[in-house]
Amino acid sequence: MEIPSTHPRIKSLKLRQKLVDGLRDGIVDPAGLIAHGRGEAFDYLLGEKTTDEAQKAIKAAIYALQHAANPVISVNGNSAALTSKEIIELSNILDAKIEVNLFHKSSEREKKIKQKLLDAGATKVYGVGVDASERIPALESNRRKVDPRGIHASDAILVMLEDGDRTEALTALGKKVLAIDLNPLSRTAQKADISIVDNISRALPELIKAAREKPKPTRYNNKKNLKQTIDKMRAGI
Amino acid sequence: MEIPSTHPRIKSLKLRQKLVDGLRDGIVDPAGLIAHGRGEAFDYLLGEKTTDEAQKAIKAAIYALQHAANPVISVNGNSAALTSKEIIELSNILDAKIEVNLFHKSSEREKKIKQKLLDAGATKVYGVGVDASERIPALESNRRKVDPRGIHASDAILVMLEDGDRTEALTALGKKVLAIDLNPLSRTAQKADISIVDNISRALPELIKAAREKPKPTRYNNKKNLKQTIDKMRAGI
Repeated sequence: MEIPSTHPRIKSLKLRQKLVDGLRDGIVDPAGLIAHGRGEAFDYLLGEKTTDEAQKAIKAAIYALQHAANPVISVNGNSAALTSKEIIELSNILDAKIEVNLFHKSSEREKKIKQKLLDAGATKVYGVGVDASERIPALESNRRKVDPRGIHASDAILVMLEDGDRTEALTALGKKVLAIDLNPLSRTAQKADISIVDNISRALPELIKAAREKPKPTRYNNKKNLKQTIDKMRAGI
Repeated sequence: MEIPSTHPRIKSLKLRQKLVDGLRDGIVDPAGLIAHGRGEAFDYLLGEKTTDEAQKAIKAAIYALQHAANPVISVNGNSAALTSKEIIELSNILDAKIEVNLFHKSSEREKKIKQKLLDAGATKVYGVGVDASERIPALESNRRKVDPRGIHASDAILVMLEDGDRTEALTALGKKVLAIDLNPLSRTAQKADISIVDNISRALPELIKAAREKPKPTRYNNKKNLKQTIDKMRAGI
């Protein structure tokens, strides 16, 4: 579909088109379109901008990833469709592994996502097929299957568009969870160690920028940061 | 997909699954999935409950439909995928016609929606193919095509997940528009005569209940009701 470049909602429409293309290519699950729509509504309430609170969370998340022994970036269909290149760039700067982990698991889709990441320049992609031979305890969904050299061995994980169950299970294992989630009320946002409430298409470039600048340690309070974000959204209704 | 019955978001996930099935069956458009996701976010802010304000609007809407000469229920892909049976039950109680009307018009999808409604027990479905031979003036989208014996002749129309353009065009024709829309800020919610801000999967059973009870006329102020709903959402963030 041709979107006129002057369209006031050009950015939002382009993201949608990437997801619809991803659906056609077998990268995105239909449920991913629903999740995206949900995020759009929260983004609208934020004024579709990266807030100061998100910037603080981004810096704190990068500090945690840069000081982790085994940082991992967890990728699903939507994040692969929207930000493959940025994910790879970030993983290179952070020396972080990339692992595919899907809520709506399908070996076909896993492989396609892996291929998309490889095509975009990834040198290694974890967690696909038989590589996901370990299990996260206390998790019933298919997301429990993880790579023993990836998420299973990690101490800090960047997750995007995540389900709350897995976030809880990962934090219960003592792993630091850094989440990008537009819904500040979600279990993921509430349970993660650091919650970046932002659109991933804006957050990833900011994460890359922060990773290059190597932020110093700062005091960061996730509960307080979320509360301030929620106040901003409340003003947006 | 098997959703674990213990999942805290089981209801929401089941609705998603119905839409995904609808996409596979050619009933739902990909854009319908994104629209559903946007609605989910607003539903989240309502606590995923039918509010007192929605109950008031439901009773007022049923009163209007029961006192209309030619009530019509307008059906699109999402509402057919989620609530076909309830739509038919409501149409039987109200003696209201059912008409298919799509934003992303496709004769293939129209036919499939009609068939789904017939399979679910509808005796007659309006507005499909050459039956949509009338036009709503001042409307550019394909939704302008309506059935002369259905929406065109109606005096009260129940719409769900509607676009603002058509809501405005229908009210401009002097038709009473009763809308179910989770976004209280949408043009549909703002322009409809009665706006039920609720998830259609909860609102339809409540509409059926109200139709059986035959509500008495009450004072109803849509602007005030919407304002109270917005206040509730604000408190829900």
